[in-house]
Amino acid sequence: MTVVDFEKFVEDLAEVSGEAIMPFFRTAIAADDKAHGGAFDPVTEADRAAELAMRRLIQRTFPSHGIIGEEFASRDADAEYVWVLDPIDGTKSFICGFPTWGTLIGLSHHGRPCYGMMHQPFTRERFHGDGEAAFWRGPSRVGRPGEERRKLVVRPCPTLGQATLMTTSPLLIEPELREKFFRVEEKVRLSRYGGDCYSYCALAAGHVDLVIEAGVQKYDIFPLIPIIEGAGGVVTTWDGGDASNGGAVIAAGDRALHDAAMRLLAG
Amino acid sequence: MTVVDFEKFVEDLAEVSGEAIMPFFRTAIAADDKAHGGAFDPVTEADRAAELAMRRLIQRTFPSHGIIGEEFASRDADAEYVWVLDPIDGTKSFICGFPTWGTLIGLSHHGRPCYGMMHQPFTRERFHGDGEAAFWRGPSRVGRPGEERRKLVVRPCPTLGQATLMTTSPLLIEPELREKFFRVEEKVRLSRYGGDCYSYCALAAGHVDLVIEAGVQKYDIFPLIPIIEGAGGVVTTWDGGDASNGGAVIAAGDRALHDAAMRLLAG
Repeated sequence: MTVVDFEKFVEDLAEVSGEAIMPFFRTAIAADDKAHGGAFDPVTEADRAAELAMRRLIQRTFPSHGIIGEEFASRDADAEYVWVLDPIDGTKSFICGFPTWGTLIGLSHHGRPCYGMMHQPFTRERFHGDGEAAFWRGPSRVGRPGEERRKLVVRPCPTLGQATLMTTSPLLIEPELREKFFRVEEKVRLSRYGGDCYSYCALAAGHVDLVIEAGVQKYDIFPLIPIIEGAGGVVTTWDGGDASNGGAVIAAGDRALHDAAMRLLAG
Repeated sequence: MTVVDFEKFVEDLAEVSGEAIMPFFRTAIAADDKAHGGAFDPVTEADRAAELAMRRLIQRTFPSHGIIGEEFASRDADAEYVWVLDPIDGTKSFICGFPTWGTLIGLSHHGRPCYGMMHQPFTRERFHGDGEAAFWRGPSRVGRPGEERRKLVVRPCPTLGQATLMTTSPLLIEPELREKFFRVEEKVRLSRYGGDCYSYCALAAGHVDLVIEAGVQKYDIFPLIPIIEGAGGVVTTWDGGDASNGGAVIAAGDRALHDAAMRLLAG
């Protein structure tokens, strides 16, 4: 497997998942369809269709690789290479017709995140990380002429008083942790809710300084770790541990800011 | 002025404002630049550049028309036709690098909203209303072949228990009104924060059922009224009055839902 083959392969994964999801995005659906148990649910339909399409492509191309996904049972989760998939991260945004959800595609090598992509098929944005981190729009291979492609780099922001903080919702943080979150929130310059995977990508791109969440699933964060770290950011659990299994997660663009926030979260 | 000329003119307004704003969107800016009084502030720069570009085009094309904008003093606010402009509605989204802000362009005739557009230059989305309401991407004129263009229609949702509610932030609602907002929020199926103008457009497109806010400025809501009403929705103040001057605003896709929410907001 050469580097070029791999780039092509993850672009194919992004394409097949996007093609599976987009027919369901902004589908006209009466609100009461959701209320009836067996009725058409566009998010679940899109989620499952996209994950199946990605699983099929992975199994055909790399039969020895494992797969951990949101919608179906894990397969060979102890393999040397394991794919970690979240077809629609940000289902509330999806339901509301907002483009701030994304498809997360991560690859683990011996349990460590070695590749990650966030794909937003409506805006055609890709954020990816593999040691470095980059952003582009549209299905471009490296170096295709005329396509926008730029390196992602976090911005310096050493203190809470200068920081922009994002969290999907404080209500998703369990009550005993929420008080600690509020201790950080009251010190920052700007706090904004909503965002899911988009917040971590905005951090990697240098527009947001801090993302703090809890109750995060493995597939919600694992594919984002190479993007954050590739851009020079740091992502851990609230107590400074490995974030790759999810839980209470803190990401920062600036290590000094990460330390400052951790002191309030731990205290 | 024919209908076709007018369509062309508002597309030109959208184009010049988008061209003025986009060089500032996702500008790499250190967080501490914002903290220093006189430093470069990309949102303010973009806001002013876009409003000036639109004002110039309006004054050249329709010298007798008035203009009310966010960034500069009103001009002929009592004219028969008055433009109401908000170059960047959703500045927090803009700052965070999210594409869920928009340029609002409204036209008043004898004080009543007769035309409205929301333009999102990063996603190339347009939501417009002028009796009817429509959505398209890219600078298309009516009927240009190959361009996506569809009618906007609200969805039926008669009860709070089925409804998706949006508000930019409950903290933007003054405390004595916030308790009333929470009365509605605890009854709905799904509540989501963030969004600004994008929430009202999602309502017009049938993805969101209810938007409730307070402290809304005239230029925040006026250009959205023809979009909401053109899609079959209803938008008033919390006490059922005219929303075109802003204040505490409630928009609903379904009139029965509007009534149900109003009873809780008034009670």
